[in-house]
Amino acid sequence: MNAPGTFTLGPGDGSARTARLTTAHGEIETPVFMPVGTQGTVKSLCPTDLQDIKARIILGNTYHLYLRPGDELVAKLGGLHRFMGWDGPILTDSGGFQVFSLSGLRRITEEGVTFASHIDGSKHLFSPEKVVSIQRNLGSDIMMVLDECVPYGADRAYTEKSLGLTTRWARRCRKAHPAGDRGQLMFGIVQGGFFKDLRAQSAEQIIEVGFDGYALGGLSVGESRAEMYDILGDAAPLLPADRPRYLMGVGAPRDLLAGMAAGIDMFDCVLPTRNARNGTLFTFQGKVNIKRAEYREDDSPLDPTCPCYACRTFSRAYLRHLYIAKELLSYRLNTLHNLTFFSIMMERARQAIREGRFAAYRAEMEALYPEGE
Amino acid sequence: MNAPGTFTLGPGDGSARTARLTTAHGEIETPVFMPVGTQGTVKSLCPTDLQDIKARIILGNTYHLYLRPGDELVAKLGGLHRFMGWDGPILTDSGGFQVFSLSGLRRITEEGVTFASHIDGSKHLFSPEKVVSIQRNLGSDIMMVLDECVPYGADRAYTEKSLGLTTRWARRCRKAHPAGDRGQLMFGIVQGGFFKDLRAQSAEQIIEVGFDGYALGGLSVGESRAEMYDILGDAAPLLPADRPRYLMGVGAPRDLLAGMAAGIDMFDCVLPTRNARNGTLFTFQGKVNIKRAEYREDDSPLDPTCPCYACRTFSRAYLRHLYIAKELLSYRLNTLHNLTFFSIMMERARQAIREGRFAAYRAEMEALYPEGE
Repeated sequence: MNAPGTFTLGPGDGSARTARLTTAHGEIETPVFMPVGTQGTVKSLCPTDLQDIKARIILGNTYHLYLRPGDELVAKLGGLHRFMGWDGPILTDSGGFQVFSLSGLRRITEEGVTFASHIDGSKHLFSPEKVVSIQRNLGSDIMMVLDECVPYGADRAYTEKSLGLTTRWARRCRKAHPAGDRGQLMFGIVQGGFFKDLRAQSAEQIIEVGFDGYALGGLSVGESRAEMYDILGDAAPLLPADRPRYLMGVGAPRDLLAGMAAGIDMFDCVLPTRNARNGTLFTFQGKVNIKRAEYREDDSPLDPTCPCYACRTFSRAYLRHLYIAKELLSYRLNTLHNLTFFSIMMERARQAIREGRFAAYRAEMEALYPEGE
Repeated sequence: MNAPGTFTLGPGDGSARTARLTTAHGEIETPVFMPVGTQGTVKSLCPTDLQDIKARIILGNTYHLYLRPGDELVAKLGGLHRFMGWDGPILTDSGGFQVFSLSGLRRITEEGVTFASHIDGSKHLFSPEKVVSIQRNLGSDIMMVLDECVPYGADRAYTEKSLGLTTRWARRCRKAHPAGDRGQLMFGIVQGGFFKDLRAQSAEQIIEVGFDGYALGGLSVGESRAEMYDILGDAAPLLPADRPRYLMGVGAPRDLLAGMAAGIDMFDCVLPTRNARNGTLFTFQGKVNIKRAEYREDDSPLDPTCPCYACRTFSRAYLRHLYIAKELLSYRLNTLHNLTFFSIMMERARQAIREGRFAAYRAEMEALYPEGE
């Protein structure tokens, strides 16, 4: 196997590209969608299920795992892979985004961000060094640097000041985890809000620090789709072409397609798993709200073209019944299905890029998902 | 395959016995424990999971399935087996017990029992003919007759009057579903509360009607364990030896063992599945409350002797984390484990009976589960 961090570009199509990224727990074909396993589990699924649906890399949340069960406990038990029984690649975020979105009483200083746990209100500090230490304890294959995710609507002055802090934090993260150490990769994060010149400024500074891959942060935070695509199209090419590019927290099928068109390689989002639990299911015939009365007597599979266990085994009527009856199996089957859809959608996208017909594939999928999510 | 209803006794040990019962969906080795699949699913599990844990027959609840999704819908979609993707045997109860325990405003008349749905308050009548019709729609392998489950503490006069009604209802059920029809078996239910002579009177009347098997109802309704065992030991031998005997709604490991010792062949209870969701786990080293702090750093499997997926894959520390974090996977893994425990406990009981060492096996298991549940 190649050394962790090896990134080998394959055929591309316009700005869209295919590649292989080597991690300490195996190789990933990109573009790839990473299911979110917040608390050491992709909700309702076993690791064997993740293999069945061909998930090749999953995401763990540093904020959640730090608070519960605690990164030191996870380290003592052999790291996150062993703890959760998953021996494929894992990317962990820095925890910064959850601090900004979930916890109360946060305060940002040069040192880091102080926050109160959403579980018990206890006070904690996430410094760049601390989040690196946590992610080293977790043993993830790809670590993310601490950054400030600027809220949507922040003005230029705030955004510029913030990106400077994000750069200084990135340098401290890099220092706390030298390149190549332990086979754990580290990705930098470009901020800069919705100001193109600030995005360029942030990209320049973060690239100068030097990471194994680069992420665009601070998108999908409340802006319109047009605004996001505008920044995406402008900022993605600023990231080094020979390193993986990761669009954080995105997203809906058409957003993944827009990201790939802009040259993004990696994505994560709770959308397929959260929507599964809300009964909103993705199919290659369009979206299905399984609770709708029209499915009450529908004996057909959710998606006749889908190879997942739910589609092979059950009718829409049964899936609707489970959802209406709030049965635990509903969450499981819906999650299995939605993640299978995302997995196949990405597999087909890679194939379309390789065969130089990505634009047509994108148009086809956008027609199925016209309104976004 | 033998005709449905064929019941072939194997080796016994004292009053305990082994046998094979043929149903339209396959043969069952008895004594057997039936996991409860209330609403067309054993909570959190797929049919493939039930196969993995060697569940040979499951129970469906007529009351729940009638109210939601409706037995006529299930019939239209090919019956309960096809609807829920389970092609092994299914026993359905009559719905009577749920009417008495769940619904409001119930009123018992000669005609049947009128009740209000616990879901939407709508009014319904369960007559003997109606519950047979529902179970024919569901297509279960074993149907139960409508009976009145006498509340614990009912006096002799009430109990005697009630068992007469239960007998008349049993006759009407039999008439509505002639022996051998559609390959669906029908079991009668003996009531009589905690009066031994009334139990004998009920048994005589129900046996006179003639069924494919016989159940003891009205036990495990709030009485002491001593009272239950007293009635059980007295009433079980009243049931025909050449027909399967079913102790309804029981129970804890030591109750299953007491039942087998009295010559009972079939059991059902929500205990293993409900306890799983409460974090109370059965192991062959005794009971484990997985939420306890002592398991926080426990890297060992829940039960090192258990072949279930949870025990093969995860540590107690991980199972505790999932439980504390209220993760959906907790319910699934705990349920897989507890049902595996019950499955193995029954398999070992059958083996012990065949080998004439059931008393020793019973004593061994009772030592592990001294206080009952």
